[in-house]
Amino acid sequence: MLASLYSRMALGCVEANRFLASVERLATFGLRADGGVERQALSEQEIEARKFLIGRARALGCKVEIDPCGNLFFTRAGAKLVPPVVMGSHIDTQPMGGRLDGAYGVLAGFEVLAALDDASIETSRPVTVVAWTNEEGSRFKPGAMGSGAFVEPSLLEHYQHAVGVDGVIFGEALAEARSAIEGALDCAPGFAMHAYLEAHIEQGPVLEQSGHSLAVVTGIQGVRWYEVRCQGCAAHAGTTPMSMRRDAVVLANNYLKRIVDLSGELSAQDIRITCGRWNVTPNSINTIASEALFTLDVRSPNYAGLDRFEATLEAERNMVENQALITIDRILEKAPTAFDERLQTLLARACQAATGTDPIRIMSGAFHDALHLAGHCPTAMIFVPSIGGVSHNPAEATQPDDLVLGVQALAYAVTSLAI
Amino acid sequence: MLASLYSRMALGCVEANRFLASVERLATFGLRADGGVERQALSEQEIEARKFLIGRARALGCKVEIDPCGNLFFTRAGAKLVPPVVMGSHIDTQPMGGRLDGAYGVLAGFEVLAALDDASIETSRPVTVVAWTNEEGSRFKPGAMGSGAFVEPSLLEHYQHAVGVDGVIFGEALAEARSAIEGALDCAPGFAMHAYLEAHIEQGPVLEQSGHSLAVVTGIQGVRWYEVRCQGCAAHAGTTPMSMRRDAVVLANNYLKRIVDLSGELSAQDIRITCGRWNVTPNSINTIASEALFTLDVRSPNYAGLDRFEATLEAERNMVENQALITIDRILEKAPTAFDERLQTLLARACQAATGTDPIRIMSGAFHDALHLAGHCPTAMIFVPSIGGVSHNPAEATQPDDLVLGVQALAYAVTSLAI
Repeated sequence: MLASLYSRMALGCVEANRFLASVERLATFGLRADGGVERQALSEQEIEARKFLIGRARALGCKVEIDPCGNLFFTRAGAKLVPPVVMGSHIDTQPMGGRLDGAYGVLAGFEVLAALDDASIETSRPVTVVAWTNEEGSRFKPGAMGSGAFVEPSLLEHYQHAVGVDGVIFGEALAEARSAIEGALDCAPGFAMHAYLEAHIEQGPVLEQSGHSLAVVTGIQGVRWYEVRCQGCAAHAGTTPMSMRRDAVVLANNYLKRIVDLSGELSAQDIRITCGRWNVTPNSINTIASEALFTLDVRSPNYAGLDRFEATLEAERNMVENQALITIDRILEKAPTAFDERLQTLLARACQAATGTDPIRIMSGAFHDALHLAGHCPTAMIFVPSIGGVSHNPAEATQPDDLVLGVQALAYAVTSLAI
Repeated sequence: MLASLYSRMALGCVEANRFLASVERLATFGLRADGGVERQALSEQEIEARKFLIGRARALGCKVEIDPCGNLFFTRAGAKLVPPVVMGSHIDTQPMGGRLDGAYGVLAGFEVLAALDDASIETSRPVTVVAWTNEEGSRFKPGAMGSGAFVEPSLLEHYQHAVGVDGVIFGEALAEARSAIEGALDCAPGFAMHAYLEAHIEQGPVLEQSGHSLAVVTGIQGVRWYEVRCQGCAAHAGTTPMSMRRDAVVLANNYLKRIVDLSGELSAQDIRITCGRWNVTPNSINTIASEALFTLDVRSPNYAGLDRFEATLEAERNMVENQALITIDRILEKAPTAFDERLQTLLARACQAATGTDPIRIMSGAFHDALHLAGHCPTAMIFVPSIGGVSHNPAEATQPDDLVLGVQALAYAVTSLAI
């Protein structure tokens, strides 16, 4: 049965030119002079882009709904009133974003709806495309607000008060956006879904370097952020003998070196460590530092890896001279997420049908709305390669052929789930 | 002859109460709520303080002169028209300064003048107190402008254009100060001096920890500043496998650790190393750093030490993986200075006479106006202890007894040079 379905949803139905033109069209909302896109959540450009999507959905005969957090749902009716098969992602971008991050998954969903029409396929389940509100978190924190408030509606009350980097209150921006968007029906958050599938660019170099066009995503790494604070005593670089110093930079350097020296071993256990920020006080050339603060971003596919790292962090501190002057604060934790196994198998078969080869399987290092949906319904993701691993950047790009193959695989998977 | 002179200049002549009261009085110009002093170069407060000094000099019957860079000279006439014995320092402070840095040396000079009067000592050489302009360099860069332009008058043309942290041009602030200060005679810079003696707080912990009240300063350390720039490649902390990274912080950490590990050995060679500043780009928790810049402040009593360090810095770079991504720029050099041996001996004898014990000899880790004078005439310095080694801070303090002993030693030394 699948094979015959796949032949009906042949490459001819997913129209490459139509899909790629839709990517260009959506990029006109917030297009930057450098070719990138700035379309931050609930900005004027993003609201115009929402209207564009609504127009397209209406042309496809879809029902348009909006939930209290501004998430937009575009639904192609099924023969039965049962939970829909849902595809989607987000259309907001970073301030210096590209054309694909988020937008790809939403437009892929629209192309699947159009292809279903072209192939005259009537599904028993409804098929829905969703555009989640504020995934990036660059204007309002935290990111992935829309999908978060969809699965846990009580969060919205809290999010309403978030203050944007431009001083705008999220709740006010949301109310304004909702009044600007006409004709969308209100719907309740948290409604049941048969499955959630998100197509996305990888945002890393692994898939491109593998030579494959598509990857099935096995899950999303867990992450912990730490602030490591090393205390010293400020003193004059010229007048203070080395033996009388308590230098915070030296302490931080000694400690971090121990962690860095273990990174190869930890990497072999799929643990990634990044020391991205250093803040030294007073940060003056000729003053011994009174404090050196550095951060650690640690990622692992599972809790065991995160816990192993944390134990290492503590143990290594105990090996450093003046260990009492080092404090470690865990300032963020996001749980590791494993995607639905059966949905992964189904996606792998769809990728095989689209490309003729088995996709690779990779873990996502970045967060996606699928993280929240994974606790709500069977969830999985497809990745297409990011050229040079670049994203959150005007240069963000994917080979057009790969983009289209990803849409085709999504079409196969959605059709087999919804039929 | 010295012994009898010393007996005439007994402790009774240097009046502790008068001297300590003068410290309190000068501190009223720019007194901060926290007890510290803000009296930056050529500020309103500093100009008022200059007027106070001029009034005091007139009361002592001294000639008052000002040179083109605003340095003030207060001269007690000698029996002969010969180059004067000069004492002094500066009265400008850091924005969060104390009562003693600079002020101590100037007020010590005034107390010596008063004590000479009290003891009815007529010297054959004139005795001059100088207050140098802008030693701190906190408002206008570079520091020690006044003494620099005194020994090398052509520098003033260049200094005129210096822009203060408050946007004021040095030349304009200087012209304003000169017009506010009435009745000072113009004098040419660079006039001959028989000797220059500067009393100062140590600004470090060595003298206090030695248990001595006074130190004879052997010279001023040379210093070199370096900027070390380590290149990486910005990438997402979550999506970039460890093996595909070029992390600037890791590179900087590996390199700096090699230097830190050598600091004990270098310290034994009287080389002091401080890594005071770290600037990481983009300094984001979840982004691999594209650049890590750190500074090194290196001090040594002699060129050999500075050169040895620089050779080590280069050699260690060659031991680091990805050495080609590290660039080292020397951004400042100040030559090591050795003070006049005979004057050091004379000061040691004066300190012995004042305290009853031999002073220790130490190298100055900080710069002083004496650095410039050392190339102009026989020059030396006396240090009094800084409690806790603290300076450039409202908490800057010295035991009053030690302050007075320093003045007494200065009085002995100046008298024996001028008699």
